[in-house]
Amino acid sequence: MNDPFMPRPEHHFTFGLWTVGNPGRDPFGHEVRAPLDPVEAVQRLAELGAYGVSFHDDDLVPYGSSPAEREAVLKRFRRALDATGMKVPMATTNLFSRPIFKEGAFIANDPQVRRFAVKKTCAAIDLGAELGAEVYVMWGGREGVEADAAKDVRTALDRYKEAVDLCCEHIRSRGLNLRIALEPKPNEPRGDMLLPTVGHALAFIGELEWPDMVGLNPEFAHETMSGLSFAHAVGQTMWQGKLFHIDLNAQRIGKYDQDFRFGSEGIRDAFYVVKLLEDARWDGMRHFDAHPYRTEDAAGVWHFARGCMRTYLILADKARRFHDDVEIQEALHVAKADALAEPTRPAGGLEEIRTASFDEAALAAQGYGHERLDQLVTELLLGAR
Amino acid sequence: MNDPFMPRPEHHFTFGLWTVGNPGRDPFGHEVRAPLDPVEAVQRLAELGAYGVSFHDDDLVPYGSSPAEREAVLKRFRRALDATGMKVPMATTNLFSRPIFKEGAFIANDPQVRRFAVKKTCAAIDLGAELGAEVYVMWGGREGVEADAAKDVRTALDRYKEAVDLCCEHIRSRGLNLRIALEPKPNEPRGDMLLPTVGHALAFIGELEWPDMVGLNPEFAHETMSGLSFAHAVGQTMWQGKLFHIDLNAQRIGKYDQDFRFGSEGIRDAFYVVKLLEDARWDGMRHFDAHPYRTEDAAGVWHFARGCMRTYLILADKARRFHDDVEIQEALHVAKADALAEPTRPAGGLEEIRTASFDEAALAAQGYGHERLDQLVTELLLGAR
Amino acid sequence: MNDPFMPRPEHHFTFGLWTVGNPGRDPFGHEVRAPLDPVEAVQRLAELGAYGVSFHDDDLVPYGSSPAEREAVLKRFRRALDATGMKVPMATTNLFSRPIFKEGAFIANDPQVRRFAVKKTCAAIDLGAELGAEVYVMWGGREGVEADAAKDVRTALDRYKEAVDLCCEHIRSRGLNLRIALEPKPNEPRGDMLLPTVGHALAFIGELEWPDMVGLNPEFAHETMSGLSFAHAVGQTMWQGKLFHIDLNAQRIGKYDQDFRFGSEGIRDAFYVVKLLEDARWDGMRHFDAHPYRTEDAAGVWHFARGCMRTYLILADKARRFHDDVEIQEALHVAKADALAEPTRPAGGLEEIRTASFDEAALAAQGYGHERLDQLVTELLLGAR
Amino acid sequence: MNDPFMPRPEHHFTFGLWTVGNPGRDPFGHEVRAPLDPVEAVQRLAELGAYGVSFHDDDLVPYGSSPAEREAVLKRFRRALDATGMKVPMATTNLFSRPIFKEGAFIANDPQVRRFAVKKTCAAIDLGAELGAEVYVMWGGREGVEADAAKDVRTALDRYKEAVDLCCEHIRSRGLNLRIALEPKPNEPRGDMLLPTVGHALAFIGELEWPDMVGLNPEFAHETMSGLSFAHAVGQTMWQGKLFHIDLNAQRIGKYDQDFRFGSEGIRDAFYVVKLLEDARWDGMRHFDAHPYRTEDAAGVWHFARGCMRTYLILADKARRFHDDVEIQEALHVAKADALAEPTRPAGGLEEIRTASFDEAALAAQGYGHERLDQLVTELLLGAR
Repeated sequence: MNDPFMPRPEHHFTFGLWTVGNPGRDPFGHEVRAPLDPVEAVQRLAELGAYGVSFHDDDLVPYGSSPAEREAVLKRFRRALDATGMKVPMATTNLFSRPIFKEGAFIANDPQVRRFAVKKTCAAIDLGAELGAEVYVMWGGREGVEADAAKDVRTALDRYKEAVDLCCEHIRSRGLNLRIALEPKPNEPRGDMLLPTVGHALAFIGELEWPDMVGLNPEFAHETMSGLSFAHAVGQTMWQGKLFHIDLNAQRIGKYDQDFRFGSEGIRDAFYVVKLLEDARWDGMRHFDAHPYRTEDAAGVWHFARGCMRTYLILADKARRFHDDVEIQEALHVAKADALAEPTRPAGGLEEIRTASFDEAALAAQGYGHERLDQLVTELLLGAR
Repeated sequence: MNDPFMPRPEHHFTFGLWTVGNPGRDPFGHEVRAPLDPVEAVQRLAELGAYGVSFHDDDLVPYGSSPAEREAVLKRFRRALDATGMKVPMATTNLFSRPIFKEGAFIANDPQVRRFAVKKTCAAIDLGAELGAEVYVMWGGREGVEADAAKDVRTALDRYKEAVDLCCEHIRSRGLNLRIALEPKPNEPRGDMLLPTVGHALAFIGELEWPDMVGLNPEFAHETMSGLSFAHAVGQTMWQGKLFHIDLNAQRIGKYDQDFRFGSEGIRDAFYVVKLLEDARWDGMRHFDAHPYRTEDAAGVWHFARGCMRTYLILADKARRFHDDVEIQEALHVAKADALAEPTRPAGGLEEIRTASFDEAALAAQGYGHERLDQLVTELLLGAR
Repeated sequence: MNDPFMPRPEHHFTFGLWTVGNPGRDPFGHEVRAPLDPVEAVQRLAELGAYGVSFHDDDLVPYGSSPAEREAVLKRFRRALDATGMKVPMATTNLFSRPIFKEGAFIANDPQVRRFAVKKTCAAIDLGAELGAEVYVMWGGREGVEADAAKDVRTALDRYKEAVDLCCEHIRSRGLNLRIALEPKPNEPRGDMLLPTVGHALAFIGELEWPDMVGLNPEFAHETMSGLSFAHAVGQTMWQGKLFHIDLNAQRIGKYDQDFRFGSEGIRDAFYVVKLLEDARWDGMRHFDAHPYRTEDAAGVWHFARGCMRTYLILADKARRFHDDVEIQEALHVAKADALAEPTRPAGGLEEIRTASFDEAALAAQGYGHERLDQLVTELLLGAR
Repeated sequence: MNDPFMPRPEHHFTFGLWTVGNPGRDPFGHEVRAPLDPVEAVQRLAELGAYGVSFHDDDLVPYGSSPAEREAVLKRFRRALDATGMKVPMATTNLFSRPIFKEGAFIANDPQVRRFAVKKTCAAIDLGAELGAEVYVMWGGREGVEADAAKDVRTALDRYKEAVDLCCEHIRSRGLNLRIALEPKPNEPRGDMLLPTVGHALAFIGELEWPDMVGLNPEFAHETMSGLSFAHAVGQTMWQGKLFHIDLNAQRIGKYDQDFRFGSEGIRDAFYVVKLLEDARWDGMRHFDAHPYRTEDAAGVWHFARGCMRTYLILADKARRFHDDVEIQEALHVAKADALAEPTRPAGGLEEIRTASFDEAALAAQGYGHERLDQLVTELLLGAR
């Protein structure tokens, strides 16, 4: 068959074990699907054309396993990777499920809880590195507060910085080839979380001991929850050289964290994100952090996974066609899109600007043709051109 | 009289001329109040106990004034300042009203529009400096996009940086004593604006030529529109040493930019912001960027202004009482609030953490008493303690 | 040419005069386009294939016109209608722009303001009827409140009902062939508006004197502002027999009232609305209540209008293909979509249910294939099938 | 002691067993508190001054209990009620947790699932009636959809109506003294839920077989999630005679369903709701549907419960003082609040309005003093007057 949207390993699609393995529990409902063996996840995703998987420490090695159990799990998992050629480009730690973290992990008020979180993270970093991960994602699922009086934000940021610095120190001391990617989120499960957006996390990195070791893992759903443009968020992250990883899924603004199949909501937003990644020839993983609807049985899980990848490929194809479309290119010219690259500073420098005279009326009268341009893009997305 | 909530100049309350001068026009309705003479604004605000005023260039000197007209306006305005003792701690530029800026100002696709914007800003900086302003606010009201195809975000950020650098160059070349404060906003009047939150703007500053000259002017309404905690935003801004100015008002999440009277919505959020400023003995201006409801005549305008200041003082009093309240302090102890200041790194360094053993069950079983603490704060706010 | 998406009068596309005539003023910016002559609007829209136009009283006949001026305006306008074959299926009143309405119109606290609003509406009803309108839209742009203490909601609803009843009485007394369509909106320009959603307005109709004369004009942007599904809103309106008119545009959740070109945001939502109208063979107008971006000159206005109609036609074509798509139909079968039409009440009535036994485990184990189904629809939308 | 804010049974405060019994599980975290014996819940709440409790069928009688087990549970529970004097004014069914309901309950596509849901509800109605409940709450937690193609909204509303009618038929056939209260919610756990707001549910009731048997149970958090005014929602519900029950808690707009302690967020909104209930001398239950923060141990649970009730009483006291406050009453007069009660229809009827002349300029010039009024209310809330 000659399906142009058939996922292949070179597309670099990856999935968290917790995504296809999601049992469908939610705040109001019990599990609807049986636990998925990580080995089966690897095999099925490989068959579908994925490049690799990622995991939280506890997803792969059940919490509290003995060293021997850990080894047995890893051996079996590694065998599945070897058999399929699947990779583990990213790993992460679960610092949110267990009751010890209920008041926070890296920014818990109790110093022992913070140390416990750092220790768990160091072990998870070792686990990730052992399996070849080069990116280590940090999502601070409990790093927030409902009762604001209980936590001073500035001191909490001191502790957040300290914890990330300690993890960097661990990586350096072990000589590992790992970079850290922070994952911002505005709320849920905490009322308000620290580092709520891509912007706050980028700003935070500037304060770290080893800022070069730390970048971002922006997530579509998390920025969208706040009504912010995810494409703009990814754009600024790239502009600051900090796009280390990315989480693709779907979400409606102002709702609970939905983690829907990529492209199922927000087609236009999804397109501009794909276009950004493809135009930049970004060489990272296209990682899906989503889960199947709770209406699905086991078969639906694989439709879900396949759909994420297909929609990406369809949108990537449209991103290519955007550049070949003569009318779109003409409309971009009308919009003066290329002129944005021209420096504002003229040959004569600031003084030339300060003394220039402008034909304000003429400049104000210009039309930029955005209605036409945007309609052309809409029709490209709808397959009507 | 002995009113504890009577505003006085030492409280450092300031208002934009455009706030009390707002004529009540909105997207669906005509003006309901006559234009307010800036001189009257100064006089009335002085009588109410304010410290000073701020303005956009065009608020004070009508756009297109001749140099002689400009001088006449300034002379009269300065006389009012002198007579009342009012100050002008901040000034700003209007880069959003005139049609020339419809596609952007600092990030307009057309280089001539960008240069026009820089020139207008340089002139406004000179005007502000002339009247003693030490903070220069930059709100990029048109720096955004609806049709994403029309503007590359990364190139737009290049231009944004270039424009801010040019303005810094202007300040340096003139030897002015002015710092720039960026004001983030997520949307409105553009579909999505660049530097949409405090976080994005803080991150952007790190890329500038003279980052020390640039900080933030966070606005209550703007962060709240996105559902983000404004107290957290101000906290991170302080943590990064970038709180140069602040805009206080009120807003409901997920709505149009309301700019209501400070404290009229979000009492709890307002309290935590005031507490942060007062606890830190922050020495900047308490600037109100709000406007009276459209239901008001001229008399209502001054009730509005007085109300902003009174609510601040009432909340500041509660912030002081928070520290004196024995039960609250006891609840903070139960919440281990003080223990957050203890470094996570133990005497033995990272290795001590990596090899430590923890009593996870005991750490997990702890209760933090947030319900009690938060209820005590609620009752403090309600005047029931 | 054989363009399948060329608008034609039989598609029943209509536009408000205020949409193509929007001069681009917004809360932060001045007008960017010259006023548009209603006669030119009629001519241009006719050329583009529209069926008709709608207007607010003041859009067509400038406020305060003498009877002679009114006649002159109408004569000229009617001539344009006749020349082009364009219709006026809907008319409405502006009860929001003028300062007299600043505290409300039908629910203003001042009885004289309320009577003024009713009188203005009666006159506008007459104007609409004169031009052949059969639907009269009522949007209560000022029927809300910021300071809740100032207005008792229950009494306000009494007044709202009374005003709508008076307008119905006017229609009946004049023997006009007009039905009223209420247009809900949650907020903007008021902090909170009465009848904020389709649901609230449907419920309100049940309390009116002549409920059969009153239905709804749901607007895409207005429901979407609140994060509600517009397709569901239209569905419930149809279910209750109350879809008298519809306003199509585009909007992002939780933002200011954007009124963007239909389909420019929310492609999936737009599709399900079009599908609902087309599947039901709904015989009303496809009315666009949107406006061109402020970046546009006069030429952009007509690209905007054309784009609204083309996107509708593209989506209507997809709605047809949905029914012809074998895989989609098969997936609907897996989802048991048809079984929803089967009554819950069995032959044996309630008692049969109360005594039935169920194989809960088997019913719970079923998968509904929504991931596959939704992906098929996504690919239909993207033109990939 | 003479604490004016001490809850007593005559205040009619009730709690769901699932509120104080909430174990702290959330989408990202495990349980943090041990299960709470319903008998202990009754005893502790009685000590705190509550009037009664409510429950879902499965909260009280574990799902799958034999008749003998059911009897044993009820006997023990009834003994606790008798010993404490606590009542059970409301009961409900859990139609959302078990996997069988994953695609819906009353509007499931599968008719057998719908019948199962009706049967479970009939049994739960009997259980509630047995314990004296006079209100039966229906929250359709799974009555929604993510993949819109899978469910026709109009047919789903047919089934929804049919199921409610069947439940009414059950009540009538058994001769029970029970009324049904529908509880609307916009989303979570489904992407979009039917009857998303108070308005939609009120409108739906008008289509039922026995509309008099059915009213609403509006919930603070659910309306607030959509950014709608909960006070307005309760006001319209009262206006339509449909306030059968109420769920009090706290929530921030546009976030996951938080169910926080009443008054912990949205102080102003909470005040206007309390004022509405108290001003109307509404005789229903003040029911709290909230849960303690996950940071709490068992002790925190009771601080949570006590805080809900205290805040209500503090706000009720302010509602009384609102009426006694001379300045507030004077400001209401300026706002013409009382004039809203005057009918719009004059003695001369519609014709008098149609022929009246108005002094528009004078009516437009009036100021309504909302800034002063709202500030007075703010200071009342803050205890500063």
